[in-house]
Amino acid sequence: MKAHQKDQPGKQGAQEAEIAEAARRAALLALDWGTTSLRAYLLDASGDVLATRVSTAGVMNLPVPAEEGGFDAAFDEACGVWLEHAPTLPVIAAGMVGSAQGWVQAPYVETPASVDALVAGIVRVKTAQGASLCVVPGVLEPGALPNVMRGEETQVFGALHGALHGTQHGTLRGTRHDTQSALIGLPGTHAKWVVVEGGRIARFYTFMTGEIYAALTAHTILGRTMKRPAEPDTHAFLRGVTVAREHGCEGLLATAFSARTLGLTGQLAADEQPDYLSGVVIGHELAGLEVALARRDVTLAQCAPQLIGSDSLCERYRLALEQFGCMRAHLVRHATERGLWHIAMQAGLVGSPR
Amino acid sequence: MKAHQKDQPGKQGAQEAEIAEAARRAALLALDWGTTSLRAYLLDASGDVLATRVSTAGVMNLPVPAEEGGFDAAFDEACGVWLEHAPTLPVIAAGMVGSAQGWVQAPYVETPASVDALVAGIVRVKTAQGASLCVVPGVLEPGALPNVMRGEETQVFGALHGALHGTQHGTLRGTRHDTQSALIGLPGTHAKWVVVEGGRIARFYTFMTGEIYAALTAHTILGRTMKRPAEPDTHAFLRGVTVAREHGCEGLLATAFSARTLGLTGQLAADEQPDYLSGVVIGHELAGLEVALARRDVTLAQCAPQLIGSDSLCERYRLALEQFGCMRAHLVRHATERGLWHIAMQAGLVGSPR
Repeated sequence: MKAHQKDQPGKQGAQEAEIAEAARRAALLALDWGTTSLRAYLLDASGDVLATRVSTAGVMNLPVPAEEGGFDAAFDEACGVWLEHAPTLPVIAAGMVGSAQGWVQAPYVETPASVDALVAGIVRVKTAQGASLCVVPGVLEPGALPNVMRGEETQVFGALHGALHGTQHGTLRGTRHDTQSALIGLPGTHAKWVVVEGGRIARFYTFMTGEIYAALTAHTILGRTMKRPAEPDTHAFLRGVTVAREHGCEGLLATAFSARTLGLTGQLAADEQPDYLSGVVIGHELAGLEVALARRDVTLAQCAPQLIGSDSLCERYRLALEQFGCMRAHLVRHATERGLWHIAMQAGLVGSPR
Repeated sequence: MKAHQKDQPGKQGAQEAEIAEAARRAALLALDWGTTSLRAYLLDASGDVLATRVSTAGVMNLPVPAEEGGFDAAFDEACGVWLEHAPTLPVIAAGMVGSAQGWVQAPYVETPASVDALVAGIVRVKTAQGASLCVVPGVLEPGALPNVMRGEETQVFGALHGALHGTQHGTLRGTRHDTQSALIGLPGTHAKWVVVEGGRIARFYTFMTGEIYAALTAHTILGRTMKRPAEPDTHAFLRGVTVAREHGCEGLLATAFSARTLGLTGQLAADEQPDYLSGVVIGHELAGLEVALARRDVTLAQCAPQLIGSDSLCERYRLALEQFGCMRAHLVRHATERGLWHIAMQAGLVGSPR
């Protein structure tokens, strides 16, 4: 059959052969399964990505309801073509798939959280096709104001350990980082800032930056006078960051209103307002982080944060961090797949890299 | 005709007689005309309220579009029955009716703003029925982060001067206040805190407390796990205030998330979350105010703020202020109609009270 396909390689046949070949070479199937999307990576024995498949079948967006086999259906749709050719491939997943609303609940591991603790907290679920899915737990920082993460813990260890088993493929190679201590920022809907000490997640902070920005622009008076600029307005953004930095303790409730009053008084054009407000909100996040770090006598200016996220958002954060005297922030790519690989390796799902 | 009504007083006839009698006794028609409502007060020569009419015809909610005579239509609907009997009655209005989206624009008066400055800034607009409507200007505090108000300036002077011409009617009588210096809080969608010095509005602060709370509960993940309690939960509210007070400078972006994580960890029930978050948001407002006041070496604990707003909301603020050591906050009622009366008096629209 394979020979036949080689002799008469139709487009579909060639694709199928490629899939089969990738599956044959694969050492791990790694899933980043969040609220709104499912991202599947096929990794080889060195942890390099052979293939990627992305679906919108997030935990809150399954093709059929969970109680009707929605997780199995989504998993099969995303990964069935690979598992067909490699049914014994180990499978690991991180993210909301391990939450109370997920496929199986993987209870939080408490801070300080090491990779070993995450490995010990892995919960397995059997898929309809017979695969055993290893779900990485999230991390909880207990206390008067607890904090939680699911998925970011995996990215954090990916950022720390990604470079250690880089191969010929540039995409998975990075700068050699300190794996024992770091400050790692994960901008987004619920931005996280994670402090790594002694190779463990020591503590972390959550800021509802992305979600509150979206709510402010879509559901308050501030959005009404806004006009999306043709391209991002860095000047307006940094102006907003500066306002938040200088008025951090007066708070977002006060400074956000300046997007309106500066508009009313002709000092901020309609198409400057979205980036200005973005700067105000991100600036408050960083001002708040600075205060949190100061409780342990750390300043942002001393740190060289690693940023995990989209290039454009991380670049915004890098510029904003400079306003706080933090000049060494840098983007880390492929943290998710690197983290899944690293945890799978520590869990013995895959062999040590060469 | 009047005698006839007296002889055979049908219900409608009695009402009409009452309206005519009130209009005959009236010295001023005073309007609080905001974004979503129009409130009309008929005041006698002592500034006492003879009658009130309320309509939903706010500036953004006119019965017909503004360019098709919407303001005249709304005014006539609310006040026509009175003006019919007293066509020469002076009419004064405050609020968004004087904004760029209002009936006529009454340009902002800058801080420090006295009643005399407001009077000098009054702009008149002729109604279709021939009345001359005097529109009170708003107040602008210029600067790097400007602040604006429209309507609140009138309430502020109402709170300061309301008691000075109280009459037999308890509703318009209050405690005798210092009219030269005060801290006045106006909770709401865009809460204002106004500092009065030398009888003038010296400076003020705006916090988007009400609007951001509404956006958080309706349009972020925080609302999803909330359940409205049967009655307001003061304990949960004060717990939120305390969190904001203790973590003020980390900011709302960080503390708001605790409504979720405390829920996830079983430390905050679903029906405690709305009031807890309300406490967090109001707490951040007061923490921000404390920081703003501190720039002039003032603390909330030293102040005896006057609160203008609904009884229940002002009571929340009074309790929250106590958490900041501010034990002498108190509610001021009828500030709007008192303020309109005072400004009308200063403008010579009505004679001095007896």
